[in-house]
Amino acid sequence: MEFIQNSWYVAGWSKEFSRELTKMTILGENIVFYRTEAGAVAALEDRCPHKLLPLSEGRLIGDDVQCGYHGVTFGCDGNCVRVPGQSVVPKSAYVRSFPIFERHNIVWVWMGDEDKADEALVFDLPELSSPDYAPHQGNPLHYESNYLNVADNLCDPAHVSFVHPTTLGNPEMEDLPIESEINDDGVVITSRWTRDAPPVGIFQALANFKGNVDRWQYYIMTVPNVAVIDFGSADVSENITYERRAEGVHIYAIHFLTPVDEYRTIDRWMHVRNFALDDKAIGGNMNDLFNVAFAEDKVILEAIQVEERRPSTRRPLRIAIDKGSNLYRRRIDELIKLERSTEDKNLTATN
Amino acid sequence: MEFIQNSWYVAGWSKEFSRELTKMTILGENIVFYRTEAGAVAALEDRCPHKLLPLSEGRLIGDDVQCGYHGVTFGCDGNCVRVPGQSVVPKSAYVRSFPIFERHNIVWVWMGDEDKADEALVFDLPELSSPDYAPHQGNPLHYESNYLNVADNLCDPAHVSFVHPTTLGNPEMEDLPIESEINDDGVVITSRWTRDAPPVGIFQALANFKGNVDRWQYYIMTVPNVAVIDFGSADVSENITYERRAEGVHIYAIHFLTPVDEYRTIDRWMHVRNFALDDKAIGGNMNDLFNVAFAEDKVILEAIQVEERRPSTRRPLRIAIDKGSNLYRRRIDELIKLERSTEDKNLTATN
Amino acid sequence: MEFIQNSWYVAGWSKEFSRELTKMTILGENIVFYRTEAGAVAALEDRCPHKLLPLSEGRLIGDDVQCGYHGVTFGCDGNCVRVPGQSVVPKSAYVRSFPIFERHNIVWVWMGDEDKADEALVFDLPELSSPDYAPHQGNPLHYESNYLNVADNLCDPAHVSFVHPTTLGNPEMEDLPIESEINDDGVVITSRWTRDAPPVGIFQALANFKGNVDRWQYYIMTVPNVAVIDFGSADVSENITYERRAEGVHIYAIHFLTPVDEYRTIDRWMHVRNFALDDKAIGGNMNDLFNVAFAEDKVILEAIQVEERRPSTRRPLRIAIDKGSNLYRRRIDELIKLERSTEDKNLTATN
Repeated sequence: MEFIQNSWYVAGWSKEFSRELTKMTILGENIVFYRTEAGAVAALEDRCPHKLLPLSEGRLIGDDVQCGYHGVTFGCDGNCVRVPGQSVVPKSAYVRSFPIFERHNIVWVWMGDEDKADEALVFDLPELSSPDYAPHQGNPLHYESNYLNVADNLCDPAHVSFVHPTTLGNPEMEDLPIESEINDDGVVITSRWTRDAPPVGIFQALANFKGNVDRWQYYIMTVPNVAVIDFGSADVSENITYERRAEGVHIYAIHFLTPVDEYRTIDRWMHVRNFALDDKAIGGNMNDLFNVAFAEDKVILEAIQVEERRPSTRRPLRIAIDKGSNLYRRRIDELIKLERSTEDKNLTATN
Repeated sequence: MEFIQNSWYVAGWSKEFSRELTKMTILGENIVFYRTEAGAVAALEDRCPHKLLPLSEGRLIGDDVQCGYHGVTFGCDGNCVRVPGQSVVPKSAYVRSFPIFERHNIVWVWMGDEDKADEALVFDLPELSSPDYAPHQGNPLHYESNYLNVADNLCDPAHVSFVHPTTLGNPEMEDLPIESEINDDGVVITSRWTRDAPPVGIFQALANFKGNVDRWQYYIMTVPNVAVIDFGSADVSENITYERRAEGVHIYAIHFLTPVDEYRTIDRWMHVRNFALDDKAIGGNMNDLFNVAFAEDKVILEAIQVEERRPSTRRPLRIAIDKGSNLYRRRIDELIKLERSTEDKNLTATN
Repeated sequence: MEFIQNSWYVAGWSKEFSRELTKMTILGENIVFYRTEAGAVAALEDRCPHKLLPLSEGRLIGDDVQCGYHGVTFGCDGNCVRVPGQSVVPKSAYVRSFPIFERHNIVWVWMGDEDKADEALVFDLPELSSPDYAPHQGNPLHYESNYLNVADNLCDPAHVSFVHPTTLGNPEMEDLPIESEINDDGVVITSRWTRDAPPVGIFQALANFKGNVDRWQYYIMTVPNVAVIDFGSADVSENITYERRAEGVHIYAIHFLTPVDEYRTIDRWMHVRNFALDDKAIGGNMNDLFNVAFAEDKVILEAIQVEERRPSTRRPLRIAIDKGSNLYRRRIDELIKLERSTEDKNLTATN
């Protein structure tokens, strides 16, 4: 399977990186991460070119990684700095190094052509820098499922009534219409309003609504790998609109998708909320509340992956609520084609 | 591997089916079973055509199954009755449904062309309806082995001396001749008489013989999947014959073979006996006695399956006692060829 | 993957073979071993040609093996001696038998053409018969790694500084030069002297050196499968030479490599030492000391195997210390080519 290479992917929260050698697989490639003595995150191909031992089995010496088999040593730019037993370091002694960008306690790695690693392309959300909103980083979710299946789920306001009936959905929403569009930046937005209905389980737990609420769900997918679910509720008496939604109980649930390989995905989620800004306990509460829902998604997404690997001659059924997911997948296909054609041109140019 | 599709296969004992959604794999196909409110067993393809989630992950609403992801709902005939979020149900929204037949507390499923699902073809044994015989349904045996290997074992009176020396065989039988034939109905019958020998372990435990017995073994294989072992013993003084065998201690051991896939088989066995008709404890006793023998078979059949998957350039050795198994396998090949040629004709006819 | 067939491989220590049927996989072939009533080791193809059951699931009757399914019985020469149910034994009823040679409590099996099984080719070491040296047989090491990777490690004095810093290596040795050569018998010898340095951990534990020592390491690889590491230390004042090394603390560590299949290897190691000849406890001590080092090797060798199975387009980096391993692998390639060309000739001759 092909992945989009020229993109920033989340490697982890800042607190996951230290002076320990930490191995990770992203887009099928093994990478060893560590912090330099100055605190920057470094990322190297996790395979010594000599006997193929993963460098993560070796040790950190200053800012360099020494292979655990014969001591061949690489700097954080990937260049070899020492080959024990000889004075000359051959030119072919190097490992790939990966561009890294760190902001808002999030560490991103660029998986594609190094020349294209533009920091201006890293996803940002103004509310992450706003004093009116507070962030909470959740636990990484490990799915045995392709990232496209996980992304489908994050372009899909309809599934919550059936998959998450006690937390994020309720029967009142089952047949409500859904809007989907792709904007000029290639962002897929799928939305639904549920007016004058009881609050769903999570908002009953987090807020103190006394009667029916208006509820919005905007699933905003920045292709390929960042889903923002902009959702919230307000008392019906407020007659809330999208523009005034900061007046309601408002949450951005951000999901950063990182494909491990064709069949596994890590979904790192965080919340940015406009309430209980100083409540230190709320993070744990939100973990507990949302992990109920995420466990429900996990069963679904992994069962689907198993089925996708079984032979079938039948074309899948497509229905009205799929529009967001269809826009997303079409955009992915376009980006992969684009990337492939650019590579072809580069190959031609260098020949 | 090809299976015979146009055949009834045992899906389970009646008590295994309820208002719970129950998943099963038969001939490599995933099927969800449940009972309707009226009590009939329904069987549907266990995969929603929308996002491929197994329907067994959903829920039963009346006699319909609702998919657990987006609520697409199917009746027990396989037709879609609801697509949430839209009023029109597309024609392509259906799942396959499987014909079911239930009798003698046994549930059968038809895996082939629905038009050919003739209930007159379901296996029956007159003694299952006779007041002179009592049935006992055993626990399902799960073998990690192809059903042909399991069937070989059930056309094979010779193996008991070597595999089951403490229960079903003894050394006196090792070199006795075996008769095999295939009758006009395509049933393979393999038989052996052991005259004037000590009773084998199981008959020592179940009956009260004082001296030597005459013993018969008739392995009656209804191709592809029902093996009846008609066996028993009588005191030598009775000079028993096959026609008068109801005067001896007589058991039909019926084995219903259901291929899970190429490498796994469920063998559901039951006994029909002409003694201890009202003894409620005997079922448990027979489970205990026979499970010793079945555990011995399991080791053999699974070790053979492992070997079959290893490369070999050598043709297998064929010996005299294989005749029943050879007749069975030849009949299987004929039926598969016949099925394939009929399919080809149908394809031609519809083109 | 191709193995060298025409070679003696170690099947185990003498004490591992008894009247029990013992199964083993060598070069991907399943073999059943047992001792005859006279005490000789016999080795047969572990697969009955009738229904493919491993003979190791059967039983030993005198010097013959009876298959556990239908009682087909083979002598220790592989010829069938009985087929129950018939008086004639077909010519095609046989299993392959393997030549065996036992000496110094080591059992060898010949995996190739039986006509070429020359006992003069079995590896020997004069010190195994010398009263001045005492042997100790260690526990078999099971590596999930190809034997070539294990062999690399045994042609490689350089890795000890990095993999075994507390037992077999120390930093003083990291950059010392290594000599490698292949002699007229095709034996690869890789050596290093470390003069006037502290003794490494193992010699601190086994001997009583008071100051610096001279240390020699000779890695002597008899292709394809016997590595002798001739190593030792002597007080610097002795000005030790290779010819006078018996005057120092001297150990031969012999490693017999037996490929299980392409991805697994058994390394049976033994030590032959010139000190503590009558010390019965030293075997256990040496197990404890060396198993620390072998556990370190296991991590490395298995991680490399995992990497070798991942796709790569890059050529491995070759460095100065690889010379011994390169000579070994080139010799392996030559022997495989030679074997293949001889087979081709034989095929031509018999056609």
